Amino acid sequence: MHTILKSEKKEVVIGYDKPFVMIGEKLNPTGIKKLGQALVDRNMDYVKHLAKRQVDWGADVLDVNVGHPQIDEAAVMPLVVEAVQSVTDVPLCIDSNEPKILEAGLNAIKGGKPLINSVNGEEKQLTTILPIVKERGAAVIALTILDEGIPPTAEGRLAAAGKILERAAKMGIPAEDIIFDPLVMTVGHDSKAATVTIKAIELIRKEFDSNICLGASNVSFGLPDRHAVNAAMLSLVMPAGATASITDPIKLGGAIRATDLLLGRDPNSMRYLKYFRATEKLRQAEAAAK
Amino acid sequence: MHTILKSEKKEVVIGYDKPFVMIGEKLNPTGIKKLGQALVDRNMDYVKHLAKRQVDWGADVLDVNVGHPQIDEAAVMPLVVEAVQSVTDVPLCIDSNEPKILEAGLNAIKGGKPLINSVNGEEKQLTTILPIVKERGAAVIALTILDEGIPPTAEGRLAAAGKILERAAKMGIPAEDIIFDPLVMTVGHDSKAATVTIKAIELIRKEFDSNICLGASNVSFGLPDRHAVNAAMLSLVMPAGATASITDPIKLGGAIRATDLLLGRDPNSMRYLKYFRATEKLRQAEAAAK
Repeated sequence: MHTILKSEKKEVVIGYDKPFVMIGEKLNPTGIKKLGQALVDRNMDYVKHLAKRQVDWGADVLDVNVGHPQIDEAAVMPLVVEAVQSVTDVPLCIDSNEPKILEAGLNAIKGGKPLINSVNGEEKQLTTILPIVKERGAAVIALTILDEGIPPTAEGRLAAAGKILERAAKMGIPAEDIIFDPLVMTVGHDSKAATVTIKAIELIRKEFDSNICLGASNVSFGLPDRHAVNAAMLSLVMPAGATASITDPIKLGGAIRATDLLLGRDPNSMRYLKYFRATEKLRQAEAAAK
Repeated sequence: MHTILKSEKKEVVIGYDKPFVMIGEKLNPTGIKKLGQALVDRNMDYVKHLAKRQVDWGADVLDVNVGHPQIDEAAVMPLVVEAVQSVTDVPLCIDSNEPKILEAGLNAIKGGKPLINSVNGEEKQLTTILPIVKERGAAVIALTILDEGIPPTAEGRLAAAGKILERAAKMGIPAEDIIFDPLVMTVGHDSKAATVTIKAIELIRKEFDSNICLGASNVSFGLPDRHAVNAAMLSLVMPAGATASITDPIKLGGAIRATDLLLGRDPNSMRYLKYFRATEKLRQAEAAAK
């Protein structure tokens, strides 16, 4: 199944027979103090830098999140979306749980078909977010969460996915516009955290053939050398059925391109070699600038 | 199925429910010019350094190969084995296709149960190497090669494994003492090279429950940033059934420990954390020494 995202000028196709799609995670003030301050000051220079840098390093789509306690998020979101569009031309993923903020972001997008991050299986979320997805003709990331919380088993997460898919279908949202995130807990707290998620991915792919987008970095929370754990996680979930990730293209692009290559999705290593040459130049230029 | 290797003092158990076993690949003059020269000079200082450094970085077993055009390999092998045993106490893997050199290495081992690298399914190999395995009570790495060459398909490699297992059984060598290497070609030349190997690993594990040791570095030959490709390859083959690898513990130990952690084989992250702390100290000490 293919999910198609579009900006005004670019189309990104997500699918199991396509190269893995990297959604840049850096436009999110959680954990990036400097970005939080820029948003408070409504200074878009740093936003533009982060947007451009991620696309330079291979991001196919950019996630845009403005969650910050000191700002009017619905007012700042359009400023950020406009700033990002002024320096890049990739499709965007508008990231919020609040309908008002989502709509503010979606209205600022020039055209195409954006991604919404996210809906989940809670009644309140289904009734407030799905109408926005439908009205905008967007695609949406759907977290396998129910009103009772995150199902602890892979089968429970499959059932949550089924519930969301059914509700979306009733509203006339096509199945290919629902991308599931089966969630991964912190492996430092639960040694089965990753294996449950890998199994959930396999089940969702087998049952629904849906695209799957994992936010892979939570798995390594609290551990040293998180990069090694996140890279290994991506290599494990890709053959299971994950087709996209909200991730750091600068740190994890190499692992993703290498795994695509090994999974036979990169004839003649063209994408891998192109990625290596481009990032090698960036690495040298960034080192020289320091 | 468990394969047990022993030195005089240490036991290493290889199995799907055990942490992945790292066999250090560095005691091999191919590609390490300085080691080649040390062997020509019969100067064991550098051998000792390479042996100790690999064990410090987490190698569970050390491969010992003395293949070099300018030396009498049967004479040098015992010197190297003795040098390695003088500074480390892990089980050894004697690496040669020549019965005389293998025997010279095996005779220099103090005690326990070593690994032999390797036999394959060619008639000449089966008739010359298996008797040595049997006589010494060793375990052996068996490459899935036949007289016709390396079978191009996963099913063909499974059949080659079956042939070797049958011949070993007829000689009274227990199945658990055969560790298969289903071989991986260079993915830069053949985009299906890795997927064929992954499938062969799954088939061999399902059919024979044997341990599988992959020499993972060949897959990245000719590509830039080989480390990223090798790390991804290890993360892909571990859930498929690979239980050991002849590899570089310094470059790939992190990826291996992270994958073990994600596969649920490291309760409370103990092994991962211990590995990180130990190697972090080594990294600092080695940087300071420079």
